[in-house]
Amino acid sequence: MKPAETILLDHGSGGRASQELIKNIFLAQLDNPVLACLEDSALVETGAGRLAFTTDSYVVDPIFFPGGDIGELAINGTINDLAMRGAKPLCLSLGLILEEGFPLADLQRVIASVRTACNRADVPVVTGDTKVVPRGKGDKIFINTSGIGLVDPGLDISSRNAGPGDMIILSGSMGDHGITILTQRAGISLQGNLRSDTLALHRLVQKMLAAAPGAVHTLRDPTRGGVATSLNEIAAAAQVAVELDENQLPIKPEVGAACEILGMDPLYLANEGKCLALVAAEHADRLLALMRSLPEGADAAIIGRVTKGPAGRVRLNTAAGGSRIVQSLTGEPLPRIC
Amino acid sequence: MKPAETILLDHGSGGRASQELIKNIFLAQLDNPVLACLEDSALVETGAGRLAFTTDSYVVDPIFFPGGDIGELAINGTINDLAMRGAKPLCLSLGLILEEGFPLADLQRVIASVRTACNRADVPVVTGDTKVVPRGKGDKIFINTSGIGLVDPGLDISSRNAGPGDMIILSGSMGDHGITILTQRAGISLQGNLRSDTLALHRLVQKMLAAAPGAVHTLRDPTRGGVATSLNEIAAAAQVAVELDENQLPIKPEVGAACEILGMDPLYLANEGKCLALVAAEHADRLLALMRSLPEGADAAIIGRVTKGPAGRVRLNTAAGGSRIVQSLTGEPLPRIC
Repeated sequence: MKPAETILLDHGSGGRASQELIKNIFLAQLDNPVLACLEDSALVETGAGRLAFTTDSYVVDPIFFPGGDIGELAINGTINDLAMRGAKPLCLSLGLILEEGFPLADLQRVIASVRTACNRADVPVVTGDTKVVPRGKGDKIFINTSGIGLVDPGLDISSRNAGPGDMIILSGSMGDHGITILTQRAGISLQGNLRSDTLALHRLVQKMLAAAPGAVHTLRDPTRGGVATSLNEIAAAAQVAVELDENQLPIKPEVGAACEILGMDPLYLANEGKCLALVAAEHADRLLALMRSLPEGADAAIIGRVTKGPAGRVRLNTAAGGSRIVQSLTGEPLPRIC
Repeated sequence: MKPAETILLDHGSGGRASQELIKNIFLAQLDNPVLACLEDSALVETGAGRLAFTTDSYVVDPIFFPGGDIGELAINGTINDLAMRGAKPLCLSLGLILEEGFPLADLQRVIASVRTACNRADVPVVTGDTKVVPRGKGDKIFINTSGIGLVDPGLDISSRNAGPGDMIILSGSMGDHGITILTQRAGISLQGNLRSDTLALHRLVQKMLAAAPGAVHTLRDPTRGGVATSLNEIAAAAQVAVELDENQLPIKPEVGAACEILGMDPLYLANEGKCLALVAAEHADRLLALMRSLPEGADAAIIGRVTKGPAGRVRLNTAAGGSRIVQSLTGEPLPRIC
């Protein structure tokens, strides 16, 4: 296939096109061992401790949605990227790109959400920047949040550490955020309580790490591209296979209904307050019970396991008793979900 | 005056409107002692060392210009924000917001500049993120770079440390970057060699700090809002006055000519490879000589001094023998300069 010569919406959807952009342009030019890990945060040895460092831009449309807004999403999302390396979040930056004409009342509302999310998570914004672009050269507000965390010496949470026999825990229901944004954009109003799951997971993660030292091998928050894409990336990084049980996938009834209407597969929908934890089998039940005892993990479920191979393959045992391959998100432009 | 109810271009020009936005919205809601410093970088005590942390978004228009491009600008600018606290830059993040339809060849060119600037400065990009927005909802490419640096224990470079008697050194000519962008946007082609001064200053700063420990009180890179706005901010933070000598201001002839044509005052134009250093008087000549011996500071000049008061006032002794007050940039929308 001839490669695209311009940026397509698909390049921003977190699936295969995004990965090709990363490989062909970013890694091809900027390659270094830390960047090449392609984890949720970079780990940097400073001589004065180990730091986790991460960045994310938020361009979600609409900026206000049931369950949250772009400000809350930006704070929680970057905290989660730090948490997925086992880091204790230390501080955040806040970079705004505002469109001329954006109402100051909306800016106030977004920054109030930033404050609430920071206070709730106990992680401060310590530095910021604001740029303004003319009307029609941006879209209301884009937010970049970068974050720094501290990682205990010896702690090694990484996609590459997923090993055969590991059990895969998902901390709660799938697709809540993605389907909320998509129904808002489609103008669909449904019965029930569709809302974003935006939530900071650093406390949940710290409790898991403390409860079973060494048992948590891999953590990933399945945002763009969803559970399917995250597991494909993990399987490729660790050179293992993954087996999922469709019967065990936690999906809220209203999310399932909305997915049917819109023709979406919840495995590919973004989550903003969930993590995948790949853990040693002998600790899986205990960790699951711990997660379920916490509000962030009340609906956690063991959704599958890691097997030896073939490397990079994700297979789903269907509810009907069959089995199918689950690939990374491909060719579905689902941009501006986060 | 009734406050604006929407975001105006002026809110992004780095002058008084930007400062009001920071005070009325960001600090009003997110206030904490680290953020409230409003320096080029935040200083964070980690228990495992002192970190400098900074963020900047780049929305410059055009993205390619004489002397550089948005990629090089983003790397050098964030390195400079770290350097202005005396930090040794450690690593950078790279967050891209791309517009659908942006040519991949242009993305390649920008990322090649990122690489060149990183290599030249010896500071790597270790983490990144890419989002795509639909055509007409962005403008080609916006870049956020955040950065982490290490600050030696005991080092305290801050606007608040400027004291009466300090001499003010500017590391080179004023306004090169700002006027280059403005003439490009105006479609004006001039004789001479107008080009951006984009340059990383961390090595210059480290050499100054090593040459005269304790003598450098304040460092600031006068980007948006220019030398005038930076000095107003410093004078307000340190509760001192500043006196400038117009005769001593280094301005390239071609920059002066372009400023006359466009009706701009170089004191308000953005610089991207210059710093203001406020230093103890007894070390000023030696530091000036050191700066002039280095390529980054070849055109450095002592442009003025700090006096006792009135607090916050910046006064210019004009070439004609008079004197005038120099205020922060106000009401001049000069957005998308960086």
